[in-house]
Amino acid sequence: MEPKIKIGIAGYGNLGKGVEYAISQQPDMELVGIFSRRDPSSVHPVGDSVAVYPLADVEKYVEDVDVMILCGGSRSDLPEQGPALAKLFTTVDSFDTHAKIPEYFDALDEAAKPAGTTAVLSVGWDPGLFSLNRLYGESVLAEGATYTFWGKGLSQGHSDAVRRIDGVKNAVQYTIPSEEAVEKVRAGEQPELSTREKHVRECYVVLEEGADAATVEETIVTMPDYFSDYDTTVSFINEEEMQKNHSAMPHGGFVIRSGKTGNGTKQVMEYSLTLDSNPEFTSSVLTAYARAAFRLNKSGQHGAKTVFDIPTGLLSPKSAAQLRKELL
Amino acid sequence: MEPKIKIGIAGYGNLGKGVEYAISQQPDMELVGIFSRRDPSSVHPVGDSVAVYPLADVEKYVEDVDVMILCGGSRSDLPEQGPALAKLFTTVDSFDTHAKIPEYFDALDEAAKPAGTTAVLSVGWDPGLFSLNRLYGESVLAEGATYTFWGKGLSQGHSDAVRRIDGVKNAVQYTIPSEEAVEKVRAGEQPELSTREKHVRECYVVLEEGADAATVEETIVTMPDYFSDYDTTVSFINEEEMQKNHSAMPHGGFVIRSGKTGNGTKQVMEYSLTLDSNPEFTSSVLTAYARAAFRLNKSGQHGAKTVFDIPTGLLSPKSAAQLRKELL
Repeated sequence: MEPKIKIGIAGYGNLGKGVEYAISQQPDMELVGIFSRRDPSSVHPVGDSVAVYPLADVEKYVEDVDVMILCGGSRSDLPEQGPALAKLFTTVDSFDTHAKIPEYFDALDEAAKPAGTTAVLSVGWDPGLFSLNRLYGESVLAEGATYTFWGKGLSQGHSDAVRRIDGVKNAVQYTIPSEEAVEKVRAGEQPELSTREKHVRECYVVLEEGADAATVEETIVTMPDYFSDYDTTVSFINEEEMQKNHSAMPHGGFVIRSGKTGNGTKQVMEYSLTLDSNPEFTSSVLTAYARAAFRLNKSGQHGAKTVFDIPTGLLSPKSAAQLRKELL
Repeated sequence: MEPKIKIGIAGYGNLGKGVEYAISQQPDMELVGIFSRRDPSSVHPVGDSVAVYPLADVEKYVEDVDVMILCGGSRSDLPEQGPALAKLFTTVDSFDTHAKIPEYFDALDEAAKPAGTTAVLSVGWDPGLFSLNRLYGESVLAEGATYTFWGKGLSQGHSDAVRRIDGVKNAVQYTIPSEEAVEKVRAGEQPELSTREKHVRECYVVLEEGADAATVEETIVTMPDYFSDYDTTVSFINEEEMQKNHSAMPHGGFVIRSGKTGNGTKQVMEYSLTLDSNPEFTSSVLTAYARAAFRLNKSGQHGAKTVFDIPTGLLSPKSAAQLRKELL
């Protein structure tokens, strides 16, 4: 039997915890430990016997870890940790600031190539599985249009924006694809859709005592970039309701490619995810790609890689012959 | 500008015609010609200026064709043509006899490796895009169940089986996923489904004059392997209705992975296709994979390859940097 792939987790928030769970489901992986910037005694892994080390000491574990899964945020953690850790380890991360991917790719590539490591970036569902489906769609149906819809799901960034409003004690925001728009696209109509036509936004808000509901609502629905281009509904609830009904982190969405072949024949390809936990799913994708990263590195493919560069078979613990026999 | 990829089509039925159309949609490909076992003067391509050559002379065109797309059938054409043509050309085919894939892979690999060609087999939607989604599903959601549903679609094999019955003049058979089963699976219930519970079959039959409808119906619904394990409905129609309503070749289906992450959290991944023409869509997939085959061959990856072995980015005419910027 092959030795197991030894995984380290850098950062232990929702994503890190999800990776800890995901590793326990994979037959060929073992968790070496969690690396955290916090005091290790304040980090409480789900597993009883999981080691926690200071991230500052990570260099000592170069020989013990095959792949480091980076579970920090895209805004400030990954731009710094990504290249630093790629100098030491083969890595996988979920960098999701779409506009900054080319720049981040270059920084990782520059760190990983001389180090002989492999850095797989922007893994998860968008970027990640949705990106792959945008690519399959436009490559196969060369004449057509691609539509990405997100939700129904909790949007962290939009929830934060509402929480920052004066008078708001707590808030969540759900992004919801417009059913009418999705149905048109599914029917192969290739409509031109404005931002407002694609998604609606629902906010659930707990007010501070004495805050004025009408003022808060007006501030939300007119907020530029976040809400002003959308049809937004605001519901006021109490803290108890918030905890009971809005603590989960569901998400999902669709990538639909609608195209024409031959003499105008309609063809529709659709990929959809219905996720009861967004971070746990992203963690599961990261973990499968850790296997691919390990194998790419072993085969001498060093530097930065995206989901587009990776043969799908490398994601599976099964051998190529087994995959041909069982899944093809 | 790079020179265009020069494509040959071997075999000109529905699939070959679909490939001819698909090439015209791809910016970086040109069609060298169609190679047919029939008398070239009896083959009528869609395009006015498309050359048709005898398949027997194909060896003369080794220098003119970068990738040969094989459009023959899996039962008798491909097992013979695949290895023979892989000795001469980089090839792509849609071999779909699932049980014989390992054996066919070996035959192609043995032909292609010494010849320095690349033979991509079993490309299309199932095997093909559905296979990829079965693999993504079980790799990401390691604990779960995968369901493949086919239809609503015309099944060629089952239509043929009905047509062979005494007293049947013409017939089509549609495979239809059971809505109840699909809904259960989508809800994350992971049901155990029998063959009968997953799909129903609908037959439309034109009788020969004087044939007995009840006898034909009984012969259909009790036919072993094809119908006896399913709930089958039989409708008798006239030839005019048959031509008017049942000449298209729609198909499609779903691959659904239902899994659990973390502490029992439900997650559902779904891939679905709604195809107004099954052969034209398969042709479009073959054509995108011809690009990948060409690039694999140029990079020295010789021998037999499946969709599992191919980095997704190779399917697109866009560069890796462009893909990262536009699609990731």
